[in-house]
Amino acid sequence: MIRITIVGLGLIGTSLGMALRSADEQTSPLGQLEVVGYDPDKRAQSEARGRLAIDRGTDSLDEAVRDAHIVIIATPVQAVRATLAQLSALLPAGAVVTDTASTKAQVCAWAHEFLPDSISFVGGHPMAGKEQAGARAADPDLFKDAIYCLTPAPNAQPEAIDAVQALVTTVGARPYYIDPDEHDAYVAGVSHLPFLLSTALIETTSRSPAWKEMALLAATGFRDISRLASGDPVMHRDICLTNRAALTRWINDTITFLVEVRGHLEASDATQFDAIFEHAKQVRDEWLHNKPYLRPGEEALQNFDQIERPGLFKRFRPPDKKRRS
Amino acid sequence: MIRITIVGLGLIGTSLGMALRSADEQTSPLGQLEVVGYDPDKRAQSEARGRLAIDRGTDSLDEAVRDAHIVIIATPVQAVRATLAQLSALLPAGAVVTDTASTKAQVCAWAHEFLPDSISFVGGHPMAGKEQAGARAADPDLFKDAIYCLTPAPNAQPEAIDAVQALVTTVGARPYYIDPDEHDAYVAGVSHLPFLLSTALIETTSRSPAWKEMALLAATGFRDISRLASGDPVMHRDICLTNRAALTRWINDTITFLVEVRGHLEASDATQFDAIFEHAKQVRDEWLHNKPYLRPGEEALQNFDQIERPGLFKRFRPPDKKRRS
Repeated sequence: MIRITIVGLGLIGTSLGMALRSADEQTSPLGQLEVVGYDPDKRAQSEARGRLAIDRGTDSLDEAVRDAHIVIIATPVQAVRATLAQLSALLPAGAVVTDTASTKAQVCAWAHEFLPDSISFVGGHPMAGKEQAGARAADPDLFKDAIYCLTPAPNAQPEAIDAVQALVTTVGARPYYIDPDEHDAYVAGVSHLPFLLSTALIETTSRSPAWKEMALLAATGFRDISRLASGDPVMHRDICLTNRAALTRWINDTITFLVEVRGHLEASDATQFDAIFEHAKQVRDEWLHNKPYLRPGEEALQNFDQIERPGLFKRFRPPDKKRRS
Repeated sequence: MIRITIVGLGLIGTSLGMALRSADEQTSPLGQLEVVGYDPDKRAQSEARGRLAIDRGTDSLDEAVRDAHIVIIATPVQAVRATLAQLSALLPAGAVVTDTASTKAQVCAWAHEFLPDSISFVGGHPMAGKEQAGARAADPDLFKDAIYCLTPAPNAQPEAIDAVQALVTTVGARPYYIDPDEHDAYVAGVSHLPFLLSTALIETTSRSPAWKEMALLAATGFRDISRLASGDPVMHRDICLTNRAALTRWINDTITFLVEVRGHLEASDATQFDAIFEHAKQVRDEWLHNKPYLRPGEEALQNFDQIERPGLFKRFRPPDKKRRS
């Protein structure tokens, strides 16, 4: 039996627990599981238990990771640092640590700084979410068909990487290996810039003295473009603070674009507007049409039910029962 | 029987026709209707007929508006000008003209310029839409519970205003009277800025050399925030060109906000990010929670089935059968 510990029972941690515990142990590459949950907020822990996301909760991080094969850190980004620092003295040798944070370069640097060499770190970032936060919003299908970025540390054991990949496929997602810096630059554009623009829309309009009148006229377009502004403020703050350079670059590009548009407005330049709106429509329609989550050769990964269960844990060294002090 | 002519059988024109023709003539304040449709694109016209949006199509604008009580111009904004110019010589005296364009000051100015005094113009703008264009995407429920802005011309007859209001309630929307300039300033913020930000997201990311890699990582947040970029390029262009001042103002406010954010990134200012993201979440959640389409005293308007059918068309002067040359 594989023991998986989830540290942080918010939306992602609880959804992972639900997805793992509802997986068929006959066909899942992980086989039989025990899922242990820990969150300093006891309400989150009991909520997660109520949602069947964990087999049991614990009173301490120490107790939570005892004999764990895989530890998933699903806290806000900035809390990952303290969690890794604490875990370094608690983990059984051979344990695998992964996380779910939205930025990866900083997290991988922390893992390198705090974890001993006997621990394999495989950074993770599921490209899935919801604007609602917390265990209450959790959903076992949250990761279904989603891309799940993986950034293994240079010293991660192949078996550890296999284990995290098995975890990813078990929750229905598709593993995607990527360099942490590339990951941060790309998701800054397609994931962090969107929530900044959502926030920009809300802040710009709601600061107007006419906001009360305007709010009445705001319809479905406004609702959709502002959706991400209802996301978790702590998550958004932490992403900004751990992905500053990449975000600054996308902000600059956006300002450049808006200044261009302002110039076309000043010049009443119909040709430029035609070009911009036709190009944007074409790009987005293509993106939607091309099943963007798939790349050439990836089709096979879609049929999860056809994936044979590899003898993964024959190769996977059972964690050392002796705890490091 | 009231004859309503719809000029322009795209998404909005066709949806209006479907909603009007599916209304119960026993309870609708408009009573029995004939809906005539005209579109220079014959395919649109036959599509609209296929979707039961019109009783019949016509070969010319002249024929379409013959004996019409109400003419709805549902073309792109910039085509409204030419349509009004043509209509001026074709309309029966006493006819009511309305439109569905997204900007109102320019359209009202054109109506004043081209329509004779015997014609009542009541500008209209349903706060509802879809990113798909054309008759094929039409939906009779598109306007259900939506705010429908009305900007009557100073010379519009009260009966004409009542008639357009009856049309609005018949399609399930809620009439909202507003000054054309105020309308343009407000919708620039809550409706036009959103599609510009959607377009900015697509243009900024897709111009990157890494777009192919990034496209793979783009998930539901990207999909939703970019949704409006798939809208009709002609509509977007026309809105920009007829609402330049208001849009420029919102673009400037957005740039100011982005420059602020860039400063907070540079300073790693967690406090500022907390304040921004918490405020934005609070504003949006309140907006969603407050049933934004309702204002104090408006509740009564929600129960359309309780609205008695007013003797509207007793007061409504039947159009003069004699055509002005």
